[in-house]
Amino acid sequence: MLFPSNLGVLVMGKRVVIALGGNAIKQPEEEGTVEEQLRNVDTACAQIASIVRKGYDIVVTHGNGPQVGNLAIQQEQSKEIVPPQPLVILGAMTQGQIGYMIQQSLRNQLRGLNKNVVTIITQVLVDKNDPDFLDPHKPVGPFYTEEEAEKLIAEKGWTIRKVRNHDERPWRRVVPSPEPLDIVEGKIVKHLVDLGSIVIASGGGGIPVVLDENGDLRGVDAVIDKDKAGEVLAEAVEADIFLILTDVDCVKLNLGKPDEKNLRELRSFMARAYLKEGHFPPGSMGPKVEACIRFVEHGGEKAIITSLDKGLEALEGKVGTVITGS
Amino acid sequence: MLFPSNLGVLVMGKRVVIALGGNAIKQPEEEGTVEEQLRNVDTACAQIASIVRKGYDIVVTHGNGPQVGNLAIQQEQSKEIVPPQPLVILGAMTQGQIGYMIQQSLRNQLRGLNKNVVTIITQVLVDKNDPDFLDPHKPVGPFYTEEEAEKLIAEKGWTIRKVRNHDERPWRRVVPSPEPLDIVEGKIVKHLVDLGSIVIASGGGGIPVVLDENGDLRGVDAVIDKDKAGEVLAEAVEADIFLILTDVDCVKLNLGKPDEKNLRELRSFMARAYLKEGHFPPGSMGPKVEACIRFVEHGGEKAIITSLDKGLEALEGKVGTVITGS
Repeated sequence: MLFPSNLGVLVMGKRVVIALGGNAIKQPEEEGTVEEQLRNVDTACAQIASIVRKGYDIVVTHGNGPQVGNLAIQQEQSKEIVPPQPLVILGAMTQGQIGYMIQQSLRNQLRGLNKNVVTIITQVLVDKNDPDFLDPHKPVGPFYTEEEAEKLIAEKGWTIRKVRNHDERPWRRVVPSPEPLDIVEGKIVKHLVDLGSIVIASGGGGIPVVLDENGDLRGVDAVIDKDKAGEVLAEAVEADIFLILTDVDCVKLNLGKPDEKNLRELRSFMARAYLKEGHFPPGSMGPKVEACIRFVEHGGEKAIITSLDKGLEALEGKVGTVITGS
Repeated sequence: MLFPSNLGVLVMGKRVVIALGGNAIKQPEEEGTVEEQLRNVDTACAQIASIVRKGYDIVVTHGNGPQVGNLAIQQEQSKEIVPPQPLVILGAMTQGQIGYMIQQSLRNQLRGLNKNVVTIITQVLVDKNDPDFLDPHKPVGPFYTEEEAEKLIAEKGWTIRKVRNHDERPWRRVVPSPEPLDIVEGKIVKHLVDLGSIVIASGGGGIPVVLDENGDLRGVDAVIDKDKAGEVLAEAVEADIFLILTDVDCVKLNLGKPDEKNLRELRSFMARAYLKEGHFPPGSMGPKVEACIRFVEHGGEKAIITSLDKGLEALEGKVGTVITGS
């Protein structure tokens, strides 16, 4: 059948939530043309397809940093002729953009397998009293001159900080990065996975929403860490394994020092100790390790951190860092 | 429960696919700010919510003309610093953007009802040999000077036509508007509706894809008529009723002439005759009536065309044009 329906067939494989790093869609040295992005997505999806062919049952989540950054620049550049959309809407746009590319590539690479592939636009609940709303620090979008920065602060109420020196545009908007609490569409995602579909969800960490005083959901301009949101998604779909695919083969102690050491197996209490000792930088390996600790301490079987091209090998125990409970 | 799961409960109401016109998201006189769009979406969703409360089982589809047009302008304006994304990707972005707004508004307005609301990123299959690919005529994006037009024709291979006179920018890109053949994610949408979810799908007429020589899906720069795609979606989910909500109360004969007449009930063979006589302009009421004819001739119970604020009244037979089979 051209577009197969496997709905109703229960899948019995291990359930894996795969969190794709930014390099799965745009390499650091690239500009971000559609040709580059489609090629990168095909490469990432070849790895995911090899995992699916081994019988794993998967949910895919992904970052959106470069894509949402480009959209933010486009909003600014065209603001005199087109009303700029806020960050929360740009995040929703990137879920459509990236979800479409992944969904099509996976369908093409797996069409013999009778799998439905689907992207769910996903809202992620955060606490409107999350302390990050009072002290935002996640930089997004273009850089500004002091004059531009002052204008945006006055007009839009943005928080803008000086994020670099020695440059005529040292200012940049910072937004909160609140903790994800719940995946609003989590039950639908779980249900579709229960029935054997491959689901792409919570892209870019999800569209951040708060519950207002009336109990209504409202979008907020914030950026949720995609690995932390991926972990909440993994709990929501009752995943066995949380697999973070990034740009390094495994987590390291004493990174960049003479006594640098690969960590291959890591109990969560040790991971927590290393985290406290500052081995894993915030904004990079830190939130990934935190998300893995949380996953295994909330009942997940194991969490794995490895590079994009080694996902299947890592699931088979050959490479990567495997984090297990206490 | 905060985010209720009604999965597993079979719904027995009549199934309605609702096609929202452009005015549901942006009014013609508006610029398209996020505040305007959220307010319009809330109004449209109040109407949809009243339909859901009467026990109808619904799927929502929507246009994306102004939104995709704004994104196309932004691509052009920023092309020196950000790689422009092609039309097919912009379409995927608008599904995320508009789907998110509708999904959130419906959830807020219906949260007592234990309904899941979800947006599915939707690809719509078209024939790569559709005659429209050889003779594109659907205008999209910004207007150009002759010089700009010539440059884009040379650089991108676009088809650009002179679409107005007496203006320094009379040129505009035209793209094919092929016939929709199938909803790639149709079975997933039907399944979710079977289980009582409200699904938003095939926004902007869907992301147009063709099957290439290898059997792979590939996106193409084209615009599928959203009412025609909505009709194919209505068939895919086995809808009873196809409801087009637009900016007029009902379809008219001799529009704008002294003998103008409201059509309240219309058999499909008569609709076809009026269509041939030129009563329904192409690009406006024409494709809507065509889509309705097709729906009832393919087994649908009835199709209705009415204005956005009269959806429920029209379902109750009080207003609107009802089209039924032969």
